[in-house]
Amino acid sequence: LVAEPPLLSARGQELASAPAPDRRRPGPPRAFRLGTPALDLFPLRSWSRIARQCVRSATPRRLDYSALAGLLSLREAIAEQVRSRGTRCTAEQVIVVAGAQRGLDLALHLLIDPGDAVAMEEPGYPGAQAALLAAGGRRLSVPVDADGLEVARLHEGQGVRVACVTPSHQFPLGVPLSLPRRQSLLAWARRSHAWVIEDDYDCDFRYQAQPLPCLHALDPDGRVIYLGSFSKTLFPALRLGYLIVPHQLVGGFLRARLASDLHPPALEQSMVARFLADGHYQRHLRRMQAAYSERLEALRQAMARSGAPLSLRPVHSGLHAVADLEGVAAERVSATAAERQLEVVPLSHYYRGDGPRQNALLLGFAAVGPRPLRAAVEKLAQAIAASR
Amino acid sequence: LVAEPPLLSARGQELASAPAPDRRRPGPPRAFRLGTPALDLFPLRSWSRIARQCVRSATPRRLDYSALAGLLSLREAIAEQVRSRGTRCTAEQVIVVAGAQRGLDLALHLLIDPGDAVAMEEPGYPGAQAALLAAGGRRLSVPVDADGLEVARLHEGQGVRVACVTPSHQFPLGVPLSLPRRQSLLAWARRSHAWVIEDDYDCDFRYQAQPLPCLHALDPDGRVIYLGSFSKTLFPALRLGYLIVPHQLVGGFLRARLASDLHPPALEQSMVARFLADGHYQRHLRRMQAAYSERLEALRQAMARSGAPLSLRPVHSGLHAVADLEGVAAERVSATAAERQLEVVPLSHYYRGDGPRQNALLLGFAAVGPRPLRAAVEKLAQAIAASR
Repeated sequence: LVAEPPLLSARGQELASAPAPDRRRPGPPRAFRLGTPALDLFPLRSWSRIARQCVRSATPRRLDYSALAGLLSLREAIAEQVRSRGTRCTAEQVIVVAGAQRGLDLALHLLIDPGDAVAMEEPGYPGAQAALLAAGGRRLSVPVDADGLEVARLHEGQGVRVACVTPSHQFPLGVPLSLPRRQSLLAWARRSHAWVIEDDYDCDFRYQAQPLPCLHALDPDGRVIYLGSFSKTLFPALRLGYLIVPHQLVGGFLRARLASDLHPPALEQSMVARFLADGHYQRHLRRMQAAYSERLEALRQAMARSGAPLSLRPVHSGLHAVADLEGVAAERVSATAAERQLEVVPLSHYYRGDGPRQNALLLGFAAVGPRPLRAAVEKLAQAIAASR
Repeated sequence: LVAEPPLLSARGQELASAPAPDRRRPGPPRAFRLGTPALDLFPLRSWSRIARQCVRSATPRRLDYSALAGLLSLREAIAEQVRSRGTRCTAEQVIVVAGAQRGLDLALHLLIDPGDAVAMEEPGYPGAQAALLAAGGRRLSVPVDADGLEVARLHEGQGVRVACVTPSHQFPLGVPLSLPRRQSLLAWARRSHAWVIEDDYDCDFRYQAQPLPCLHALDPDGRVIYLGSFSKTLFPALRLGYLIVPHQLVGGFLRARLASDLHPPALEQSMVARFLADGHYQRHLRRMQAAYSERLEALRQAMARSGAPLSLRPVHSGLHAVADLEGVAAERVSATAAERQLEVVPLSHYYRGDGPRQNALLLGFAAVGPRPLRAAVEKLAQAIAASR
């Protein structure tokens, strides 16, 4: 008789022990939720009209398996759209994926072998860590300071094959990677023949200075794989994102999709292509830019008024703020808040190492309007007071 | 200076060298195409009405991230639907995935570690091999004879963690796994503490005797992971399938989705849930059963009339036939046919080992109606004559 092994493989057990995401919480979007945009302002009427048009015009061919790269009209629209990030690519370089997370998963399976080292931000995005686990990579944590990833910690001798970064709005700290650091990171990739996966999440909404060009735009060597998502600009349930990959990798990335999900559903792809082509997308981005500026301002004012021992760090871009907390532990506040039906995540949640953790809360400000946001700040101030 | 490594990792290179799928061929569905159902008969009008209803009734909550397992109403409908396969499960055991291929990919990442042995059918489904590569598994090829997988070749000492099988309609040979073999396979899994992944593709359409109960129905030990798909019963571009997993694995499977695609898009899920709930699905299956019987009969008669040296094997179920070829190599016929814009795949395409390969063609009979199917058989007979 064979000794009974664990139910899951070692990798399986690691994957199964991922922290439950905040997003699994039931119920409608709530104040401070991370990763949820202003779904209350999504133009459902236009979306519904487009759905009708796309389903009506479907042909048997459209119902069959389609291009592994995604719908050509959508890839063309994306290639056009990313010019706003200062970069250029052809539609052939665009691969439509089932969300940025799936793009990360695909890229890591192609670029590393089990045991290979991957540089990861500390603190960082749990999704990147999960994809690393699935691909069997070895984590090299690189700290993040006020200028973003401390690139000087990367050396050729470390055998790092890939660096996963969030340069435009570091997750979770929210800082942009400085221009000198961007240049150093690209120089390191060139010297080390390593790849950089640039997760450009949250790049579309800005509240301060002009944004820096994305790494992809600064990279003359084709070492950057760019990752974009429609989860924040449209909505998360769409599950659509895209990769921009160097020409010489396109064929490999497409073949590798046969091992997993082939291509995202055709209907969503055709709907988004039309939404972009008809100008709805640009219009929606402009409206959301205004709405998020207003919601951020509401958060700022409500926090100042509340007298809570919280200080908001500068918010350059994106959909969440970091608020330093004084005199009480953020984890404790988070627990007290949860008892009061308030979702608020401590920054410490996103560290993996044993190093010092900043005592701060992450506050999403996109999910609800100014009024419920102000009410939530009041509630949070009370939860902080009750946590002392 | 570091020596320049290959662009992709070793795993990446293997994934990138997957054979180009037949389904990447452009153009509308054509005779003999594999894996493509009768898209010309899909009820687009009902589908369009459902799309309108689902988009109209979307709320902000529906646009947000949703349950990792998939929409509850869809999971309930699937749990009900699989009773036709002789099995029972609760909605909690159903996990909606982005196609059966993605389900295979997810299951293998959880159940094996790199280097673990997995029993695979020879000849077999290339998608299963691709998922095995992505998960880093070691292939143990097990031959298939007229009764399906030669289960007697599996022994406890081999350290096999998982067996991937297509019991209801072996891909590509089309034979069902016999009842004694089903029992032996389950006994082997129990003794070896191994898992069986039952890919029940093509189970919905039958032309001969009553089907055998699926492995999942025969399994008292919870060692079977059942894989279903809507690609053949609805359409491939939908990219929806499902897993039925033992209770104790559900939590792990859900967490592991965070590393990749989280959940399929909400819109498709709600549309399929409504399509099932409103009875469209059962009606469509009945109509397709009749259509496929007619198309298979048209293929049979046209082949007999054509005088081509092809003999059709019995077709128990599914959407393709195997035709043995005499006097000329199937690969050669396939190449000649391709020059004449005719898609036809040799059986040899699906062997991986060096063993003997049967000289036969795979003929999908679902994608087009009787008339174009008959014309294609004429054309195929000419291609065979020209290949001698």
